[in-house]
Amino acid sequence: MSGNAHSAAPVLPAQGRLRPLDLRDVEITGGFWGERQSINGAATLRHIEHWLEREGWIRNFDLTANGGDPVERRGREFSDSEVYKFLEAMAWEIGRTDDAELESRFRAIVRRVGAAQQPDGYLNTRFGRPGQAPRWSDLEWGHELYCVGHLLQAAVARVRTRPDADDGLLDIACRAADNVCRTFGRDGIDSVCGHAEIETALVEFARATGQERYLTQAALFVDRRGHGRLADVEFGREYFQDDQPVRQATVLRGHAVRANYLAAGAVDVAVEVKDAGLLDAVRGQWRNTVSRRTYVTGGQGSRHQDEAFGGDWMLPPDRAYSETCAGIGSVMLAWRLLLADGDPRYADLIERTLFNVVSTSPAADGQSFFYTNTLHRRELGTTPDTDRPSLRAAASLRAPWFEVSCCPTNVARTLASLSAYVATCDDDGLQVHQYLTGTVEQHLADGRSRRVHITTEYPYDGQIRVRVDSDDEHPWSLSLRVPGWADQGATVTLDGVARPVAPGVFTEHRAWRRGDEMVLRLPMAPRFVHPDSRIDAVRGCVAVERGPLVYALESVDVPGVASVDDLRVDVTRPPRLRDGQVLVRCRQVRGQEHDWPYRADAAESAPVPVDEFDDVPLVPYHAWANRGPSTMRVWLPTDTALREPAPGQP
Amino acid sequence: MSGNAHSAAPVLPAQGRLRPLDLRDVEITGGFWGERQSINGAATLRHIEHWLEREGWIRNFDLTANGGDPVERRGREFSDSEVYKFLEAMAWEIGRTDDAELESRFRAIVRRVGAAQQPDGYLNTRFGRPGQAPRWSDLEWGHELYCVGHLLQAAVARVRTRPDADDGLLDIACRAADNVCRTFGRDGIDSVCGHAEIETALVEFARATGQERYLTQAALFVDRRGHGRLADVEFGREYFQDDQPVRQATVLRGHAVRANYLAAGAVDVAVEVKDAGLLDAVRGQWRNTVSRRTYVTGGQGSRHQDEAFGGDWMLPPDRAYSETCAGIGSVMLAWRLLLADGDPRYADLIERTLFNVVSTSPAADGQSFFYTNTLHRRELGTTPDTDRPSLRAAASLRAPWFEVSCCPTNVARTLASLSAYVATCDDDGLQVHQYLTGTVEQHLADGRSRRVHITTEYPYDGQIRVRVDSDDEHPWSLSLRVPGWADQGATVTLDGVARPVAPGVFTEHRAWRRGDEMVLRLPMAPRFVHPDSRIDAVRGCVAVERGPLVYALESVDVPGVASVDDLRVDVTRPPRLRDGQVLVRCRQVRGQEHDWPYRADAAESAPVPVDEFDDVPLVPYHAWANRGPSTMRVWLPTDTALREPAPGQP
Repeated sequence: MSGNAHSAAPVLPAQGRLRPLDLRDVEITGGFWGERQSINGAATLRHIEHWLEREGWIRNFDLTANGGDPVERRGREFSDSEVYKFLEAMAWEIGRTDDAELESRFRAIVRRVGAAQQPDGYLNTRFGRPGQAPRWSDLEWGHELYCVGHLLQAAVARVRTRPDADDGLLDIACRAADNVCRTFGRDGIDSVCGHAEIETALVEFARATGQERYLTQAALFVDRRGHGRLADVEFGREYFQDDQPVRQATVLRGHAVRANYLAAGAVDVAVEVKDAGLLDAVRGQWRNTVSRRTYVTGGQGSRHQDEAFGGDWMLPPDRAYSETCAGIGSVMLAWRLLLADGDPRYADLIERTLFNVVSTSPAADGQSFFYTNTLHRRELGTTPDTDRPSLRAAASLRAPWFEVSCCPTNVARTLASLSAYVATCDDDGLQVHQYLTGTVEQHLADGRSRRVHITTEYPYDGQIRVRVDSDDEHPWSLSLRVPGWADQGATVTLDGVARPVAPGVFTEHRAWRRGDEMVLRLPMAPRFVHPDSRIDAVRGCVAVERGPLVYALESVDVPGVASVDDLRVDVTRPPRLRDGQVLVRCRQVRGQEHDWPYRADAAESAPVPVDEFDDVPLVPYHAWANRGPSTMRVWLPTDTALREPAPGQP
Repeated sequence: MSGNAHSAAPVLPAQGRLRPLDLRDVEITGGFWGERQSINGAATLRHIEHWLEREGWIRNFDLTANGGDPVERRGREFSDSEVYKFLEAMAWEIGRTDDAELESRFRAIVRRVGAAQQPDGYLNTRFGRPGQAPRWSDLEWGHELYCVGHLLQAAVARVRTRPDADDGLLDIACRAADNVCRTFGRDGIDSVCGHAEIETALVEFARATGQERYLTQAALFVDRRGHGRLADVEFGREYFQDDQPVRQATVLRGHAVRANYLAAGAVDVAVEVKDAGLLDAVRGQWRNTVSRRTYVTGGQGSRHQDEAFGGDWMLPPDRAYSETCAGIGSVMLAWRLLLADGDPRYADLIERTLFNVVSTSPAADGQSFFYTNTLHRRELGTTPDTDRPSLRAAASLRAPWFEVSCCPTNVARTLASLSAYVATCDDDGLQVHQYLTGTVEQHLADGRSRRVHITTEYPYDGQIRVRVDSDDEHPWSLSLRVPGWADQGATVTLDGVARPVAPGVFTEHRAWRRGDEMVLRLPMAPRFVHPDSRIDAVRGCVAVERGPLVYALESVDVPGVASVDDLRVDVTRPPRLRDGQVLVRCRQVRGQEHDWPYRADAAESAPVPVDEFDDVPLVPYHAWANRGPSTMRVWLPTDTALREPAPGQP
């Protein structure tokens, strides 16, 4: 069967409704994601290594190994984790491409990391040496366990793609994990890390090594959190989810990356130890988070101050934080829930988040990134410095590196392992969740295999052609996800007959023969979407979507208009598609100038029509900010106010 | 003439269109502000002293004086300034009430402060001693000059109310100011303080002492700022207005308190040195800030992260920061511009800000405070701890003290000196700007005086009766401000004849006799106000005002409704007044529950009507959160969406 401990996949649960496939059995051969995966391997990895060296974050390990002066250490307290995430990205990429040169770079860094490990397994360049703060002395902010978590994930990626490698990474990880178990075990320090990550990492490490003690430790960390073991910080204990036990919480809250990582770890634990109550708690948290605390892009986290979720319905488009890493964390969580439950809504969110958050972060050349992903940019902003790290949310354009640079390495490891999220299998057959050009294969225990080839121009075209590439006289099920947004006009064509299909999963069970085809056609007319009436910040606005893509209005596309904020979209005329471009009709308005912007006479507040534009082009949100500084809106005010008497007027 | 260096007033410019009155010539005898001023003197000052002692912020001076261990110092880097602001508040209060017991408490604290001063005049409990960071080593965050600024303002208050006091405060302040001039003079450290305050303080200190060097130093600080002398911090140099020279900036930006304090200091310098260009620059900044970056309450600063102004039109009601101190800073700035220009719009903003920000902060008992003044509270929140300092923006209720506790002392000094902002004079007569029950007197150089008695229930009633209480055969002008919001139906009655008056200034020039009366009647029907169409965050909403007061919908007033967010106001029916209560008609709605809150079908996003309420009471915004935790809205969504077909529907 697939999904055993020796598959190459980031997540291999012992049980669940669906099983992951080996990455090597899913090949992305081109198109939207193929291109991004290639650029990631060809350019982003080298770009990351350049900056890790340049900023001294790898050299920190040398410094520790050589007993150098701790004041020379550079970077923030969590910079070790970027090196580990880079190792993880490289490991997946080596598994995907067999790149010998990358393999040698990988080994070189592993050696430098390993040299910094203390005899008892402790490994961190920021704590524990003379002249540094003692080990585990700052669990709130120190990120030591978080760093170990990413080390373990790098080792998992490596051991699953190169189980026989003698590079030493697995040993380093085992010693570090054992040190954690000794230090934080039942009789050890009774606390948790301010940034969740060790939980999901320990479970996966347990799965990869077969060592139950790592799972036990992960379960202990999950249970400990939420009881106020961490100090009360300025942002409150909800910042690191220490306000409420995981199994009592009803929604994700606090720092959006931490919240998602913790929830992912809780699912891992729940699945492994068959804790139905814990799993159900996270399921409920996910439902409430998605229905009330998630941006239309799939982005999560609305607050700059603490990189946190706001309360329900607090989803301001301007200053939306929507950190790239929170999007990745959300994909991690949804993927684990999808494996556990099989519910296609998890895959819906993964699709939305991959296309509109994860793919928005890297520039086309893979060498600059968004850290935050705002949905409204009012001012042009400045071009980020290419010669030094940027502040995370400072510029309106993508930046090559950040002082807190979690996002580039997170994007890199996600793109390198993207095949993991495309399809699953169960005893009955194959389920395709994400649509891209490539092949998906399920190897059966008896040597048979089920294989399909997918051809599509998705997300720009709605036709997804799935051709069976294997022969098997036994019938099996081929399932395709019909996305939630495709609730009007989706069809599946089988044996030349098209039939309407509703959002959810369409499954055909038959004895598939090589060359059999199932064609899914999704409705690709651009559409307006309307926000829930409780989202105050976008009242009176619509967004535009086409397929899984959210669109944006960018100022470079309306050169005659001073600001995108001066446009009102005509919602009586649906968005149109012309030559692949999505177009909307807009009225240009100007605000009235008054000394004081709040008027008893509604007419004095109403915008004044200036001009009309029949064909205002929108860009896919993921492609915005690629043509120099610009202003941008995802949520477009409608022109209702222009066509109707203003409120309070006769 | 009034307004000379020996008047008791916080601001005494050498020139300007209007001149301030001596605080002793303006008596507030009751009503809205009289009550608050009494409570401030009777309860708030003692409350503040209790917490200053309890938190050790006064004891820090003893520690410094005694050469105690610096690790015992408590409080943030700016805690000295709270002691100084408390001294300033006490000085004004002593001037107002001649309270002998307060006088002795004042002197005791001055002694403790003075004992901590170094021989060269340097005075700060946080820097400069062995075991502490060196003096002036952290201009970005250290607040040393800021603290000196507040020391000087305390000394100004004292010297103007008790010019002959031998308490030593003036000497302490002179030595500290001279130390600043030596250290930061033309040949000294070429930089500024991260938090503006020393600028306005030095100008006033120059006015109070007649020493030009302090003005020279203030002008130097104003000129130095905006050239990137401070380090680039996470929030950018605009955080402390070091991004752009004052005379080039077109709007206030960055930290809202710092921005207002700096602008106030720039006006002071401009007026003193007759720098018309500098004054005009600040005038323009004020205009753009008020018309584009100010909340309907007068509050300023929309961002929690950096306590900063957002860009133009970024005025989200939820998470509005609107720090109490920013409101006070805005009053300080507007007052200086009013004195310089005489434009009643400055007094309009002062009125709005006093009634809706400054008076909102303290509870009725004067012993707990809002630090931030949000315009929308979605969750009940918790009751603040009364036994320890709160985080500044943590709770939904007022808190007794804060870890950063700038607001209580700022409120206290403002209320103690509130008479300063009521009226002005010029050669021609008296101008009344703010309406309250009391007397206003102008002493002329030849011994004559012009005196009026004001009687009103303002802001709850619109009748303001101004009776002349002096005889003078020479004609003089009595001017009353007609507020900007009173643009329909204001009248002035003179000699029994009522005539309509428009917003601005109404002036009557005559030989006033004792007993002559001028009655201003302002229209007090509650009204809806509509936001500028560019303020995205409150699109489709109205606020309710009555007179100068902004109103709020608070959940305790709608016990049958789960959340204030479930109400939609009917704008076809104007708000009503019944038994002094403002009432609106609302529809209760509920949102529709979906897995995903963004719907292609507008009908699925529309709220569903549940119930109707004819008489939903609102509370004055300043009085909200006085009845336990509640949710609250200033901006009420209108029910337009219920009465009209949803956008995109036939």
